Amino acid sequence: MNITIDREVLLENLNIISRGLPSKSPMPILTGIKFYVTENDLFMTSSNTDISVEVTITDSSLQIVEAGSTVVPGRLFIDIIRKINSKKVNLFLSDDKILIVKADRGEYKLHIMDPLNYPKIDFVPLENPLTLHSDVLKSLIKETVFATAQTEKKPILAGVNFVNSNNELIVTATDSFRLSQKITNIREYKDFNITIPNKSLDEMLKALDVYDGDVNLYFTQNRLLAQYRNVCFQTRLLDGSYPDTSRLIPDSFPIVVKFNKDELVEAVERVSLLSPRDKERDKEIAYSIIKLSVRKDRTIEISTNNTVYGDAREEVIPTFVDASNPITIGFSSRYLLEALKSFMSTEISLNLTGEIRPFVIRGEKDVNLTQLILPVRMD
Amino acid sequence: MNITIDREVLLENLNIISRGLPSKSPMPILTGIKFYVTENDLFMTSSNTDISVEVTITDSSLQIVEAGSTVVPGRLFIDIIRKINSKKVNLFLSDDKILIVKADRGEYKLHIMDPLNYPKIDFVPLENPLTLHSDVLKSLIKETVFATAQTEKKPILAGVNFVNSNNELIVTATDSFRLSQKITNIREYKDFNITIPNKSLDEMLKALDVYDGDVNLYFTQNRLLAQYRNVCFQTRLLDGSYPDTSRLIPDSFPIVVKFNKDELVEAVERVSLLSPRDKERDKEIAYSIIKLSVRKDRTIEISTNNTVYGDAREEVIPTFVDASNPITIGFSSRYLLEALKSFMSTEISLNLTGEIRPFVIRGEKDVNLTQLILPVRMD
Repeated sequence: MNITIDREVLLENLNIISRGLPSKSPMPILTGIKFYVTENDLFMTSSNTDISVEVTITDSSLQIVEAGSTVVPGRLFIDIIRKINSKKVNLFLSDDKILIVKADRGEYKLHIMDPLNYPKIDFVPLENPLTLHSDVLKSLIKETVFATAQTEKKPILAGVNFVNSNNELIVTATDSFRLSQKITNIREYKDFNITIPNKSLDEMLKALDVYDGDVNLYFTQNRLLAQYRNVCFQTRLLDGSYPDTSRLIPDSFPIVVKFNKDELVEAVERVSLLSPRDKERDKEIAYSIIKLSVRKDRTIEISTNNTVYGDAREEVIPTFVDASNPITIGFSSRYLLEALKSFMSTEISLNLTGEIRPFVIRGEKDVNLTQLILPVRMD
Repeated sequence: MNITIDREVLLENLNIISRGLPSKSPMPILTGIKFYVTENDLFMTSSNTDISVEVTITDSSLQIVEAGSTVVPGRLFIDIIRKINSKKVNLFLSDDKILIVKADRGEYKLHIMDPLNYPKIDFVPLENPLTLHSDVLKSLIKETVFATAQTEKKPILAGVNFVNSNNELIVTATDSFRLSQKITNIREYKDFNITIPNKSLDEMLKALDVYDGDVNLYFTQNRLLAQYRNVCFQTRLLDGSYPDTSRLIPDSFPIVVKFNKDELVEAVERVSLLSPRDKERDKEIAYSIIKLSVRKDRTIEISTNNTVYGDAREEVIPTFVDASNPITIGFSSRYLLEALKSFMSTEISLNLTGEIRPFVIRGEKDVNLTQLILPVRMD
């Protein structure tokens, strides 16, 4: 193997490859990046067993002197290419143990691993894709993934559920205290019901970061392949059936209050500085509990009481109120803030049904996006 | 106590006060900020016992309705003022247990502490200052403080030594493997020899960050007070006598090599990606050992050998070489990088005396700044 390539082209592709590269692995060879060079193309592959990534480089700057394959120490190789500032990089195998990286006046001799030991990765066949624009896919992920469970108690909740039912794509995440759901119409496609691990979606978001164009999605029973440009990003899917959440979202709301989103976010952030941490629900995450009251005079108060440090109270002027009776609900400020930040709308509405019944947040301009939060009982 | 003040003025002063504010303390009252309001002025004080900071606010935006004093929970108060976006803030004591912070439509009731329990802080009397411009003081700190010892083995080496001898200010730091020294001429001032803790200098740098003007320094046996604008920043000094380093710096060098600083930094950063970590010297810090060779043909090679990952080699073209014989020295790349970054010069010189003798780095435009590094034996 002996190739020369523009450093920037190589680095850009390594940034995508890094999304599937573990820093440690029970299979040490997976900490390496596999290079496979044919007469015309360079393939690079990474895998942490959950996620596998492959890029195919046919860039005009790629000069192939000799085909071949190898596995290089992944993080180290990426660090070197990142720190180099030459225009071109030359990579060649001096023997079956050393890859030489040459760039300007620098020369790096890296101990390599045997490509025959790299596990064969089965990518889903490229047949019958569901095509979504990268903007749509990125939005779907950002609007939901934060609401997945971070613990291992119910493994299926650590993923986002994607259901196609008659060309209506319903994307849902819940950790059983809150729920995010976005519904989008898609082109004619067979029904499916899959759950994608949250970590895979985080990495997919990073891999798609600067990409703007169509993404082709291919499914099997237990794998999803996202293919775009020269990239194949594959993730395993979660086993098990996702809980039915269709009846959780109320469809009528006796109380509706609308706010300027930024004003509400800022008031909640300030009040939550003093909110006590409720550690009983879940020891791994600190929940900051605050109260929201719709008062008789139709003003809105956000408040918290902290026996150690003191109390906080903010009045927020709503842009619209429809409430026959005053009401006070208590909930995690972190849940509300994360939900609010998923909206692009300037104006959002809180839709309430009762003091200990789930409430729903919607945005004027965010069609079919629902954020639901379960209040806590305030005593 | 009842005052109103522009939020920005208050926040700017709190940022300085925060330099002396511990997040935890064996004396819980020290986690608070002391407010002392007279008829005309607001004084705020913080102290972590090593560092004490006091600011005096007489800003035109300060309206004093009622004098008084209190101690507020420090970090929390700063966080609230930071998050508020009103123009004005009103602070008043509702009784002897609650401070009310009012800003626009927000109200915060903070549990306060008894100012009578706040320890009395003796500031050094403001007599007979040594005046340095903030730029000079900040440079002196940045050029030396990184070379102080980070461990507690020899406590005196965890500080920077400031010696005035006949109006020549000699500032020295060493962890016994390297040494930084800067000599500056100062105005007529009595001789002194003090050692300032590195952590205090780090905080002083941050306190001085945006300040541009004269700083007055006042000394006692065991304290230093830096006074500027409306700020008093005081630190304890280290006990004990600083080792005599005057004979450590060689005064003639058989080998001199000059480099473009940035080129050398980049080559060293790349090579050190592969440098093995020498953990025997000091378990707390990983030393990356690299080699620098002046070769027969007067080219310079930076290299390292790593039995696990491989070898790295960079050739750097010097701007000047004066060497009768080839030489190879080995040293910590971190020491060299930190030393190089202390220079503002574009061109720097490495001045060598022998393979295991200290070498000295100087910069064309950095008058009287010496960085010295002790090589390690290469086997």
